[in-house]
Amino acid sequence: MGETKESQEKLLTLGQTARAVSRELALLSSSQKDEALQAMASSLRKNARQILKANEQDLEDARKKGLSASFVDRLFLNEGRIEMMAQGLMAIAQAPDPVGTILATFKRPNGLIIKRVRVPLGVIGVIYESRPNVTADAAGLCLKAGNAVILRGGSDSFRSSLAISEVLRGALRESRLPEDALQMVSTRDRAAVKALLKMDRYIDVLIPRGGPQLIAEISAESHIPLLKHLAGLCHTYIHEGADPEMAKEVLLNAKMRRTGICGATEVLLIDRAVLTSHLPGILNGLFTLGCEVRGDLKAQEFDSRVKPAAENDYDTEFLAPILAVKTVSGLEEALSHIALHGTQHTEAIITEDARAAARFLREVDSAIVMHNTSTQFADGGEFGMGAEMGIATGKLHARGPIGAEQLTTFKYWVQGKGQLRP
Amino acid sequence: MGETKESQEKLLTLGQTARAVSRELALLSSSQKDEALQAMASSLRKNARQILKANEQDLEDARKKGLSASFVDRLFLNEGRIEMMAQGLMAIAQAPDPVGTILATFKRPNGLIIKRVRVPLGVIGVIYESRPNVTADAAGLCLKAGNAVILRGGSDSFRSSLAISEVLRGALRESRLPEDALQMVSTRDRAAVKALLKMDRYIDVLIPRGGPQLIAEISAESHIPLLKHLAGLCHTYIHEGADPEMAKEVLLNAKMRRTGICGATEVLLIDRAVLTSHLPGILNGLFTLGCEVRGDLKAQEFDSRVKPAAENDYDTEFLAPILAVKTVSGLEEALSHIALHGTQHTEAIITEDARAAARFLREVDSAIVMHNTSTQFADGGEFGMGAEMGIATGKLHARGPIGAEQLTTFKYWVQGKGQLRP
Repeated sequence: MGETKESQEKLLTLGQTARAVSRELALLSSSQKDEALQAMASSLRKNARQILKANEQDLEDARKKGLSASFVDRLFLNEGRIEMMAQGLMAIAQAPDPVGTILATFKRPNGLIIKRVRVPLGVIGVIYESRPNVTADAAGLCLKAGNAVILRGGSDSFRSSLAISEVLRGALRESRLPEDALQMVSTRDRAAVKALLKMDRYIDVLIPRGGPQLIAEISAESHIPLLKHLAGLCHTYIHEGADPEMAKEVLLNAKMRRTGICGATEVLLIDRAVLTSHLPGILNGLFTLGCEVRGDLKAQEFDSRVKPAAENDYDTEFLAPILAVKTVSGLEEALSHIALHGTQHTEAIITEDARAAARFLREVDSAIVMHNTSTQFADGGEFGMGAEMGIATGKLHARGPIGAEQLTTFKYWVQGKGQLRP
Repeated sequence: MGETKESQEKLLTLGQTARAVSRELALLSSSQKDEALQAMASSLRKNARQILKANEQDLEDARKKGLSASFVDRLFLNEGRIEMMAQGLMAIAQAPDPVGTILATFKRPNGLIIKRVRVPLGVIGVIYESRPNVTADAAGLCLKAGNAVILRGGSDSFRSSLAISEVLRGALRESRLPEDALQMVSTRDRAAVKALLKMDRYIDVLIPRGGPQLIAEISAESHIPLLKHLAGLCHTYIHEGADPEMAKEVLLNAKMRRTGICGATEVLLIDRAVLTSHLPGILNGLFTLGCEVRGDLKAQEFDSRVKPAAENDYDTEFLAPILAVKTVSGLEEALSHIALHGTQHTEAIITEDARAAARFLREVDSAIVMHNTSTQFADGGEFGMGAEMGIATGKLHARGPIGAEQLTTFKYWVQGKGQLRP
């Protein structure tokens, strides 16, 4: 009890410090921020050994606890992965500064000049699982957008994340910026997360990164606005106007390039009219790559290796080499299916029919809607944002990849000459 | 119990209907929407008598219940006020359509063309107090932005709001648009509000309008993102470089034009250096207009009518002819005072010193920051938005006046020629 209270007070101090520092960060010039980002990148390279040492301890504990191979892989760092973090920071440094942009100007009949100008959000909290690289990405993007950040990484990567954040804070000091631009919650205590969720006075927005359970827990308890990723049950729809070769190549890439990412296609919708012409080649490709296919009756007719799909297969984010296939009568049914089963993340249509493509782009209510390309392109880096903090599936503020620009807000400047309101 | 269950099922149907209709509304052309808005305006004028009759019943009940005069005034309708609603709808019709605007285009090295395009939010819920005119404003702005809306007005204006919404739904039918673009919760039951707050599957954003207590209740319980107005404790800061005549005129307007609105100035900060030159004229003006002034010791020295300010007077949104006055040593102290006591709504500096003004505009973290004009201009109409749904004091998505544009989101269109992600 006493300990919990002490850690809550520590958190409060963290919040107050972040709030105070955020006022200073909002005023930094682009070059001050970019030089610091470059210093952070070189500091990661210089101190790789120290970070890897901390990571070894985390890995040892994780193996002792018998955590899964994929969990350990996300936790694992080596020189190459540290270099990736450094390159991420360099990319953020080279991207344009979103802060200070004039987004709109209104000249009013009474002579008032009103400008909408982009400004930092203030203080951002990031709660993430045991993936140490998020520490550097989050620190870099938040600094670029002029925000203070409070990080709370997964407890199994505690030492690695702390080592990275200490290195980055050192680089901030060397760059004569406040090191408290980046603060790490220095306890593994789970109660710290609950306390963070209540700190709406000090934290402007929370970004939870992790599995659906973490997100659900945080959503249920937070009084701070969230930018969150719910699910990525992505559809690829092969329209009757699709080029068969392109349809096959794109679908195989969308499903199989990496099956564990949120932009991987989970459901193939295919027009009845092109089943005979297009499906066999696709199925051969999928089976060759080791993908399990679960289809409706029509799809099963084409290949005995197609297993019957259960109804909930069309609502399951497999994140695995499994694809659900459904035959549709045309665009209308595809749109209805997506409206009913989609998660508003990313959907693609493959067709040479420009009118069908235009309808699909207009009518599908997802963060990202694609024509003739792979859903695996749903990624901030591929969008040219340098780095991202995940894909937001909500509709408010940020939708799609969360880059530096999405970590800003705006305010209005109203310039007058003594105007009075009548 | 049985009744509550029945009304919850009715609400669910409302939500499902709104979601279904929103797909249709998103595809309307600008002229379809604008013609419907014009039809809604004329329909209000044509059916004024019917609306006033419903309003009379509400007023009678309100008087029987002994509700306050200001409450009854907000509830009261007459031909003039109905004409104001109609003109509001006409102004919304004449404003540009926010939907479909291309906000950004990225051409990627791999040939992908990525566009960020403005789209409707989907379904908007509006919970408001007993101000029947909000019914028309909300219906108009939501339709303009291509959204379906579910309205829940205060129970004391139930008949008036229902009459207005029925008239507007009739106009939608006549315009061959789905009348369910606008749905009204048809129960006075308070449990309906609680049920609405849980309908995150059907409602994309909730806009609570009303007093701090209503907003606090809704914030505590909602799982749907909110666009909300917390408080408007606005500051006017008279800098040592202020023109004395302008300072007086602007301050009197900012405080006394209307004292009950959120953009009214509640606290005057004034530089010590200009107390003697600027304050006496201001105090005379305030007392002449019947304003009570509560000041610190220095302000009290100037006029025996200045009452001593209590510490919490600098944290109180009076919404009344009362002004708290505080002497500051200069810009730095003014900025700190606002950072500590402000509500991030609207603040103004009065000065001829361009550098001081620039610092104030940059450093004050409020939705609206003004130079040489009255905080009473914090209003969507005055910003040229035609109408507004209040001033958002949060930082996410909408900040400042909520007009039609703020009721939209965006999605990405990605157009390819078969590109695969490496």
